[in-house]
Amino acid sequence: MKAAIFKGQGRIEIGERPDPKVQEPTDAVVRVVLACVCGSDLWYYRGESDFTPGSPIGHEFIGVVEQVGDKVSNIAKGDFVISPFAYSDGTCPNCQAGITTACVAGGFIPAGNGDGGQGEAVRVPLADGTLVKVPGSDHSDETLASLLTLSDVMCTGHHAAVSAEVKQGDTVAVVGDGAVGLCAILAAKRLGAQRIIALSRNPARQELARAFGATDILAKRGEEANEAVLLLTDGVGVDAALECVGTNEAMQTALAIARPGSIVGYVGVPHGIEIPVPTLFYRNVGAHGGPAPARAYIPELLDDVLAGHINPGRVFDFTTDLNGIAQAYAAMDERRAIKSLVKVGTV
Amino acid sequence: MKAAIFKGQGRIEIGERPDPKVQEPTDAVVRVVLACVCGSDLWYYRGESDFTPGSPIGHEFIGVVEQVGDKVSNIAKGDFVISPFAYSDGTCPNCQAGITTACVAGGFIPAGNGDGGQGEAVRVPLADGTLVKVPGSDHSDETLASLLTLSDVMCTGHHAAVSAEVKQGDTVAVVGDGAVGLCAILAAKRLGAQRIIALSRNPARQELARAFGATDILAKRGEEANEAVLLLTDGVGVDAALECVGTNEAMQTALAIARPGSIVGYVGVPHGIEIPVPTLFYRNVGAHGGPAPARAYIPELLDDVLAGHINPGRVFDFTTDLNGIAQAYAAMDERRAIKSLVKVGTV
Repeated sequence: MKAAIFKGQGRIEIGERPDPKVQEPTDAVVRVVLACVCGSDLWYYRGESDFTPGSPIGHEFIGVVEQVGDKVSNIAKGDFVISPFAYSDGTCPNCQAGITTACVAGGFIPAGNGDGGQGEAVRVPLADGTLVKVPGSDHSDETLASLLTLSDVMCTGHHAAVSAEVKQGDTVAVVGDGAVGLCAILAAKRLGAQRIIALSRNPARQELARAFGATDILAKRGEEANEAVLLLTDGVGVDAALECVGTNEAMQTALAIARPGSIVGYVGVPHGIEIPVPTLFYRNVGAHGGPAPARAYIPELLDDVLAGHINPGRVFDFTTDLNGIAQAYAAMDERRAIKSLVKVGTV
Repeated sequence: MKAAIFKGQGRIEIGERPDPKVQEPTDAVVRVVLACVCGSDLWYYRGESDFTPGSPIGHEFIGVVEQVGDKVSNIAKGDFVISPFAYSDGTCPNCQAGITTACVAGGFIPAGNGDGGQGEAVRVPLADGTLVKVPGSDHSDETLASLLTLSDVMCTGHHAAVSAEVKQGDTVAVVGDGAVGLCAILAAKRLGAQRIIALSRNPARQELARAFGATDILAKRGEEANEAVLLLTDGVGVDAALECVGTNEAMQTALAIARPGSIVGYVGVPHGIEIPVPTLFYRNVGAHGGPAPARAYIPELLDDVLAGHINPGRVFDFTTDLNGIAQAYAAMDERRAIKSLVKVGTV
């Protein structure tokens, strides 16, 4: 089969890999219909995280089940499924507590040195606990794009809002106007936030931020952003600050604009983030976040996507096929695209 | 009047200070009945925090109102009151949100270079927002001791439990067997924790921990403590870890034993605490805490003290008068006492 392979900094190419087969009785093999590129993929693409050249890549995809192991009972051949970016058994204490990304038997896609999501097929471990069957058929392209976001980015934005404990009537600030930040706006709105302040300097992203529910746009950074948010919030800060980048600058902004007593929800994979403990302590500001337990969130978000209440697929503004994977990365790297969709197969 | 004065590392003496008077129309002057020594007082006593020699000290006291300014309307001369360790106006957005220790007009006792709680009288700023009148009269010595804990230590233990979001049925671990840790046990029990694991190696403190609601005592530290807690909790950790010391060792223990998805509540004044962001992120463990908004907590805890539901005053195991203040500190510094009560006046 064809699959995207990381060849080194700035180099993504299509290569050949063996067709995946069921190896464990709990596996499923999924033929990929849609995949996409994650902001976190850019860290290794840009050489800012270590990653072994020659590895298959990608972790977000939806597709059709082609084969299941003997012990798989919830999922069957022919099912159209969403695969979260982490696999999990669904039964361990952490899964039962809703933190499927801490499953004691789980891990992240690509599993081991196995298939990445940016390829024609993926062997998914622990299929019963991991995959979510999508009801219905003949979904529109728009719906399919939104379903794809449940693999990671929409769940990750939702996790920022959940970690920050966004509630009805809150004033929320979202730091980061990438696809995760935009989904965090949508998630905050969905959870009842009354006022949503988006920090963004890019006109196209500002427009989508407003469409997703942002009530205020601030095109400032650093100290100027902090002051502007305080001006909008009686001088005390927001009820929930969502950090959706992963850089120290973004985190310091989020911590500075969070009101005393509140929690910063942070979901960007941390790169060089430092938490200034005494400052946070004296302001009673907390920090909570991590890899989104997408598997636990998918059912409720899926309902809202299928009902047309949310349309997170609008974050995709660049589309290509597997042969265009290098362009999919380049468009995001150069900030020409918010998020790149990769059409791999058909439902 | 007589008041305790910090003279330098390890030296607390009684000195003379001017009798406090109302200076602002929002002030009250409170004649101190009971005061006590805080674990946080030991940081400067031991030379581990900077503190100016010659300064009055102490921030926990209850007493009788002697004088009020023209703009004080909720509190009157003769009222028996609890003074939280921080003063606050009760009206700013942070006070309204329940974080009175972040009051935009507030501060900590001793206010400015003013009176400390370990003295015969204290000028309390923003008296209407700060002081809480105690209903009834002829309270027993036991009740008075418990009322005194509402000035700081019981509210601080409660804040650890609230910050960690302890709820009905939880398994909780408390790191630290000082007065705050013991009060945190009592608070966790009060909030419905089903299992409370206390980390303590001191027999007297273990006994009080059990009396306050601890179901398991672990006399271990560091890596051994982490392993023991995991053994008790299906290998995943506790629903809520309460850090009640302020050292990095205690914080690392709390972070290590908190289950994925949970929040560490930390209330010990931080000394050298570092939060390992990537470790926490990948475990989805949060941290939240700070100076307890005692003023916001006092009303509900006061009801429970007066009803006899909680008796946090049992943390006092050393009693003296103002002339014995040096002994009050020495007993705690040498860990002969959990917490020292100082009898200053009569109701």
